[in-house]
Amino acid sequence: MSKVALILSGCGVFDGSEINESVLCLLALSQKGDTYECFAPQGELLVVDHLTRKPTGEKRSILKESARIARGHIRPLEELDPSHFDAILMPGGFGAACNLSTYATDEEECEINPNLKKILISFHQAKKPIGATCISPALIARVFQGKVKLYLTLGSKSSNISLAKMEMSPIEAKSSEVVADEENRVYTTPCYMASENLAEMFQGVKKLVAHL
Amino acid sequence: MSKVALILSGCGVFDGSEINESVLCLLALSQKGDTYECFAPQGELLVVDHLTRKPTGEKRSILKESARIARGHIRPLEELDPSHFDAILMPGGFGAACNLSTYATDEEECEINPNLKKILISFHQAKKPIGATCISPALIARVFQGKVKLYLTLGSKSSNISLAKMEMSPIEAKSSEVVADEENRVYTTPCYMASENLAEMFQGVKKLVAHL
Repeated sequence: MSKVALILSGCGVFDGSEINESVLCLLALSQKGDTYECFAPQGELLVVDHLTRKPTGEKRSILKESARIARGHIRPLEELDPSHFDAILMPGGFGAACNLSTYATDEEECEINPNLKKILISFHQAKKPIGATCISPALIARVFQGKVKLYLTLGSKSSNISLAKMEMSPIEAKSSEVVADEENRVYTTPCYMASENLAEMFQGVKKLVAHL
Repeated sequence: MSKVALILSGCGVFDGSEINESVLCLLALSQKGDTYECFAPQGELLVVDHLTRKPTGEKRSILKESARIARGHIRPLEELDPSHFDAILMPGGFGAACNLSTYATDEEECEINPNLKKILISFHQAKKPIGATCISPALIARVFQGKVKLYLTLGSKSSNISLAKMEMSPIEAKSSEVVADEENRVYTTPCYMASENLAEMFQGVKKLVAHL
């Protein structure tokens, strides 16, 4: 039984954490008998209307919106002490690219939330598993660029191009599969990057969670 | 393979659809090979801060917030034509009691969204399955009060009291169980009314979805 830190970035695929992926992660952890705590950064997110997919100009708290997925049981990212956890898991969604990093605008040149960067390096140094779904492996690539060459996936060959630009070893994968970098204990699965089928995605997420 | 109409009421347990339950329903449908379409009413919801659990005074569109769970693939409730679907499924969350009905304030005297009421009666008359989780069975009870006596559950004996007040036959159930009223094809499981354990809840949801 592991204790896992789950990193959220809002609530909704277009401006926050992808809701389905986040819940599949929580369900897989629950089925395995793991416990978890949720964390999210404190800043604000720019709201995207999920019907029209257009920005509304409105701002909302990343932490408060993430609390919707976590049913209120969530703490600010800066309170995450890696020594209290056995593993870390980052679901996808555009929030990872907007609210946890600047990947949405800067791609391979992006900056990563400084707390998250420190936390990921700390888990890696302690040889504790790091899991990421969908677009989140891109953040791991940026954090370890120039330091460690990781086997990672964002799904298809074309999706994986940015991983190669960040000096990683990209592996093609379906959403039912996990790419396991056993040496570095980094585990990734593409989820919505490769499929819209929840049942398929859940196979990948379960395989990922089995490694944590 | 069934085509199921899923009824949402916002995005977040305290002012909308319970996110985890909604996704468990979608995953169970996907695993079974069913297809689904999501629907939500058009009005506004009163926002509850999911960190403090207090109302903020802000209003948001029920449909646009529900679109976060549905990744934008959602239509207004009034466009739901029961003849196009094999079954209907209503996840829980406080949104069912605030945005689909007045149950949160009026309990057994509550009014039900008139479109939803018509839709539920239509599914029942066509002998098509109706599924509901968590608090949503209370809405079914109110719709059919004085017309049909249904076997329903809201979980424990004390939770079930309101069902008896609405002239239903309440059955105690755990979140891993489903109460099946086979004569009326109404299927209910308590989810968060009875447990916080996602793995257990998913057992109940899967058993429910198997009937749809």
